[in-house]
Parts: sequence; structure tokens; C-alpha cells
Amino acid sequence: MPPLFLLTDFGTADPYVAQMKGSILMHAPHANIIDLSHAIRPFDTAQAGFFLWASLSYFPRESVVLCVVDPGVGTDRRIVLVECEGRKVLAPDNGVTALLLARCEAGEGIRVFEMEKPRNDVSSTFHGRDIFAPLGAQLMQGALPETLGRPVGSASLVHPSWTAPRFEGNHLWFRVVHIDRFGNCLLNLFIADWEERLQGGTEMVLTSGNRPLLPVGTYSELGRDDVGILAGSQGVFEISMREKSAASELGIGPGDELECEVFLK
Amino acid sequence: MPPLFLLTDFGTADPYVAQMKGSILMHAPHANIIDLSHAIRPFDTAQAGFFLWASLSYFPRESVVLCVVDPGVGTDRRIVLVECEGRKVLAPDNGVTALLLARCEAGEGIRVFEMEKPRNDVSSTFHGRDIFAPLGAQLMQGALPETLGRPVGSASLVHPSWTAPRFEGNHLWFRVVHIDRFGNCLLNLFIADWEERLQGGTEMVLTSGNRPLLPVGTYSELGRDDVGILAGSQGVFEISMREKSAASELGIGPGDELECEVFLK
Amino acid sequence: MPPLFLLTDFGTADPYVAQMKGSILMHAPHANIIDLSHAIRPFDTAQAGFFLWASLSYFPRESVVLCVVDPGVGTDRRIVLVECEGRKVLAPDNGVTALLLARCEAGEGIRVFEMEKPRNDVSSTFHGRDIFAPLGAQLMQGALPETLGRPVGSASLVHPSWTAPRFEGNHLWFRVVHIDRFGNCLLNLFIADWEERLQGGTEMVLTSGNRPLLPVGTYSELGRDDVGILAGSQGVFEISMREKSAASELGIGPGDELECEVFLK
Repeated sequence: MPPLFLLTDFGTADPYVAQMKGSILMHAPHANIIDLSHAIRPFDTAQAGFFLWASLSYFPRESVVLCVVDPGVGTDRRIVLVECEGRKVLAPDNGVTALLLARCEAGEGIRVFEMEKPRNDVSSTFHGRDIFAPLGAQLMQGALPETLGRPVGSASLVHPSWTAPRFEGNHLWFRVVHIDRFGNCLLNLFIADWEERLQGGTEMVLTSGNRPLLPVGTYSELGRDDVGILAGSQGVFEISMREKSAASELGIGPGDELECEVFLK
Repeated sequence: MPPLFLLTDFGTADPYVAQMKGSILMHAPHANIIDLSHAIRPFDTAQAGFFLWASLSYFPRESVVLCVVDPGVGTDRRIVLVECEGRKVLAPDNGVTALLLARCEAGEGIRVFEMEKPRNDVSSTFHGRDIFAPLGAQLMQGALPETLGRPVGSASLVHPSWTAPRFEGNHLWFRVVHIDRFGNCLLNLFIADWEERLQGGTEMVLTSGNRPLLPVGTYSELGRDDVGILAGSQGVFEISMREKSAASELGIGPGDELECEVFLK
Repeated sequence: MPPLFLLTDFGTADPYVAQMKGSILMHAPHANIIDLSHAIRPFDTAQAGFFLWASLSYFPRESVVLCVVDPGVGTDRRIVLVECEGRKVLAPDNGVTALLLARCEAGEGIRVFEMEKPRNDVSSTFHGRDIFAPLGAQLMQGALPETLGRPVGSASLVHPSWTAPRFEGNHLWFRVVHIDRFGNCLLNLFIADWEERLQGGTEMVLTSGNRPLLPVGTYSELGRDDVGILAGSQGVFEISMREKSAASELGIGPGDELECEVFLK
């Protein structure tokens, strides 16, 4: 049986995650359940979407991922299943799968399903436990997506606006998709798309504070007060300092849009 | 082998939970150990008791739960086992099982055991690792409670005072048993007991601030600044706002007693 | 298959721990992965070293521990394997294994290996996922350390200065190696070394604030405002108060060096 990963904005203080796990284990007693993260900022579908995008290829093929970041719980938003390179992601149709869709469509291709509406005897406020958990347990145990819902086109899914940076003249606007524990600011500048343009002698200056961003390969190349930009381990460029929080030093918050001047050499 | 759930006030930063898990795995190498929560406020047996009550029915039958919220560690307080609908809860006798006892007695009935005192070669400050963990491992592996302790009457267990709300005239006093990550304030108004009285046209006004509580079915029915009261997913009524923390907006803290005027229509 | 424990300074909010786990599961699909802690203060190898020392004997023999607290990631610091009483700890060579080495050498003895440098197709900033995880998976599955690296002498490993307290005249200087969730201040006064000297009528007074430290056996022996010193569950002496944070009350922080006057009776 493949592992099942959980991504939520529930935190780990409340009993919610354990109730989801209990519910999964009632339906699949030998499930191996792994926490992706439960610290998504409440209702932040952009951050959750980035976590999915950055992590999925490190999970075993056949893995099931339940993403329950769901401001629309209780409304009639759909629940969708995105199957990408053998991995199955179950999520509300609220934009959270947008990055994944973009990447997977460029690769091996995807399959998308709209899950059947559950019967009415579930709570209207905790779909994670009452709908996602039993569905995930069925998928782990080999249920075919076709038997749980119907295929839909990926274009029918909600597509949010935050996914792409904007380049005009020599100004680049991009978004902070995540700030990690070390204060590294992860950006929606995907290495695969931006590597050629942002490396090899390009100079970048953060408009706010006129701070130059030094292109480096590892944190240890940075001097004490340098601000670096590096192609990090999460598939995106990140703004970082050495053993210091770039976010705190520069006053950058999650979700911020940043502006940069770019000088190609 | 059924899963084993852990509920403590240890947090997850310290090595304590991992040492408990290591100790369980030494005695039961194939144990499937799940965190219920480790974020109980230090020594808050009321919050822990609510978590047990709200979660137990979502865990597979035969599950074992270790509850180590234990202000009296090192004193001669007893360790008890409450078996309820096939699930086994091991806990200090400090009131933490009170809600569970009340519910289970109303249902299928319970069995209660006082565990044998352990031999003296254990630490006096970390019974979770040194006493609860080996006992839990034995229970998971099918040891009969009768062989680990002796049956006692549930009336002999510590019964705290916080479990029930108070209704006088048209004033209702109730307790905040938990505030969740979203700022929802969960109350000791159990849906099964209060559903008929608090729904269907009843008006409630929170005395502090004179804030009306709108009875709703889901968070999404609430307007921007509305304060709602709804029958939530945890078996109790909760005071909530839409995508906003009711606790912060109303200045409500965990353990608070709140007063409400109730107007039956 | 033995369990695998993870000790990092990654926190649990970021996707880093889950990516490590996914990577382990890709190489060892049936791995049982347990969190030791991910809340080590960023880059605090002393705290991580204490966690290893305090916890290892509670883990099953044959357990594998991955310790990824690694300020030098991206530099050419070595990765080492310390095998101690059958348990295998994989860590950067940055001092994090120092306490463990000292204890194990006094006991059954240890074996130390320097791991082979990995091939170049790994990220330079996330060795936890890209190097430690696959190595850990191999070790769990029975790979012999000899096949993954070469034996080295333990004296060749980095030895930090913080491991031992200092005693001059009747003044004792020691270090706070960890402050736990309850505000207990855990000290580098190892019970095995200091039990005889610090118990049985010895009086200790904390120089800062001139606060006497009462030698007690359990927290419950302390009065409301007493500050106690007790031989705790983690193998070291700790400064504690009863149901109150000694750290907050006394203004003690992690890593602090404290001074004490000691009066032998």
C-alpha cells in the first residue's frame, strides 16, 4: 500500500488531524500516513499550492495526497482528483492544484476527476475528516478514480492569478510563495523557467531599500550582511541571508509582491 | 495490531514524545503510533478531557489511547484504564476521563480498571515514557486489562466541576473548552443535549459586549462581521466568525466562562 | 526493519521534513519513521547533541537516527556515522555527536565511519533530503556501514567546547542545554557525574538573583515560589519550579551559562 500524505491548514494543536487519521485508519487499517504540513496559513491556497508543487516529485509513485485547505467548506465547491505521474492529489477545486496542473501538463500529462458528491450524513464544516479521509483510504487501497467520480478537463478547474511573475522593461514583479523557518523567502520564480535569465552575470536590485541580490550557489558563499538570490532546493529562486532571516532583515512577509530591477550583463 | 494514539501536554519541541514512542517500539516493534495532540495547555485536564471526548469515536475500535496530562506526576495519584466501546484509554486519575465516562455510561457502558503500581525503578518525573508507554504497548498487543490492574467503579474516579453548563432564568453560563487554530471557540454545550433548545428560532446574546450570536449551519452563511453559533464538527456548539478569529475579535480565551442571554421564540 | 528517527532544525511548518520522509520511503517503502524533534533552534548543534545523548537509549537497538542540524551545508564538512550500542546515528561532523561519543566510549564502545561523498547530482542546500535520507534508508535495510564509508577514529571528529561544566573553588559554571515546554532548565550537569556531589545536604545558590536551589526528587515537593534542582528524566540535573516556568521566572534562556555557589555540608 502506498503512503498517504496530508496537507492542511489545521495546525497540529487541535484534534482535527488526528480525527482525519483515525477516519483513514478505520477505512484502511494498515495505512502509512505522513504529514506534509499542517501549518499552511489559514485559507492560503497559494502557499498550499506551492507546497504541493515543490514536494510531489519526492513522494513515491502511487502516493495519495489529501490537501484540505478549504475556505469554501460547506459551499458547493467541487472536490477534484488530480493524477500526475502516478501520484493522486485530492483537493477542493479552489486553485490549490494550479501550479501542479501547469507542470504536469508540460510533462507526462495528467488526469483530472470531479469526485461524486457524498451522501448527506456528513458534517458541513469538516470535510477533511468526513469526505476526504474515506476517499483517500479508498484510493490508497487501489480504488480506480473512475469509480469515485467522473473525468473532467483540467481547464474547468479554478485558475488563480498569483501563479506567474510579471516582467516589464527591466522591472520584474514576483510573489513570495513561502517564507521558511530560516527566513528564506521562496519566490514564484521557477528555476526551470528563470535559470538562464537570472544567472550568468545578471544583476538584480530589490527596489524596496535598493538592496542588491547576490547570485550565489549556496548560503555559505554569502558574507555576513549580504542578501543572496539562489536556486534553492524547492525548485524556485529564494532570497536568503547566511544564518540569518532574510524575511526579518528585509521586512518581507508571506504573500508579498516584490519588485526588482534586472540588469542583464 | 490496532493503532495507539498519544495525547499529552509535552509539545513537540522537546524529546519527550519521541522517547515515549521509542519506549513503545521497544515493547511493540510494529506499533502504529499516531499523535492526537501534544499541544494541550500544560496541566489543562479540562482541555485534554474534551479532546478525548470529541475524538474517540473517530478512532478504530480496539485503539489504545495514552493520555499523559499529569500535574500530579510523582504523587500517588492512580493510573486508570477506561474501556469505552472497545477503545482503551489509559490516563492519570485526575478528571481527564470525566466527559468520556458520562457519555459512555449513557451508551454501551464502560469498564474501568486501576492499574497496578509499577515497580520502583522508574523515573519519578516522566511516567509517560516509563509507565504509560510499556503499559500501552502491552494493551496494543492484546494484554487483557484484568491482568494489568483491578476493576474499579467509575464513581471512584475524580470528577471535576467544569463539565456542565449552568442555566438560570434566561441566563446561560458555559465554558470555553478549546479555541482552535481558526479562532473558533468550542463550548461545553454538547450538541446532543442542547440542539433542541438552541436551534429553531432561539435568540442568544453574549452578555459581554452585548453581541448577538447568529445560529447558522456553516461558516459560509456568516457575513463579514457576524458572530455565529453553530453545531460544529466536534460534537459541541462553537462561537465562530467567517475566515476570522472569533476568539481574537471577542477577546475570548481558553477556559473562560461566558454568559449569554437566551430568548426562546 | 528497525525504526528511523529524525532530528532536525527544520521545524514542521515547511515541506522539508515531508520531502525527507518521501525520499526515505522511495528507497525503503516500509520504513517506520519517527520524529525525534524538528524544533532544534536553527544551527544549534549543542541542543541537538543533547537531544541525541538524552534519547538514544530509549530507542530500539538497530534504530537509525538522522541528525540534520547543519550550519555547514554546502561546505565540505564530512558526514559521519556513529554506531553506539547497536544504534546508528548519521550526522554532519560539526560537534553534534560529541556527548554521545563521550558516553559510548565509556560504555560498550563505538564505531565511527566517514561516509563517502555523494555523486554531484544533489542539491547543495538540502543534504537532509538528497544525501541523508537515501543513506538512512540503506542503513535501515541492513546495509553495512563499511560499504557506505570508511572507519575513522572518533578523535578525528569535531569536539566542541560546551560539553563540560567548570568547578573552581566553590563556584560552579554550567550551561543550559535545553529549556523544555514547562520552563524546566536542563543543564550540562550529568546525573552520573554529579549525583554524589550535588545531593545529600549540599546547598546551591544561583549567583544571579542570589536564589537558593532546593534539591528535590519530584516537582510536587516544591512550594509555590521555590526553585528546585532535581535529577530529571533526561539524565541531567534541571532547574525547575512547580507548575510554573523556571526559565521565565528567572530570566534564563537556552544556551545561557549560569554560575552557582556550592556549599558542601
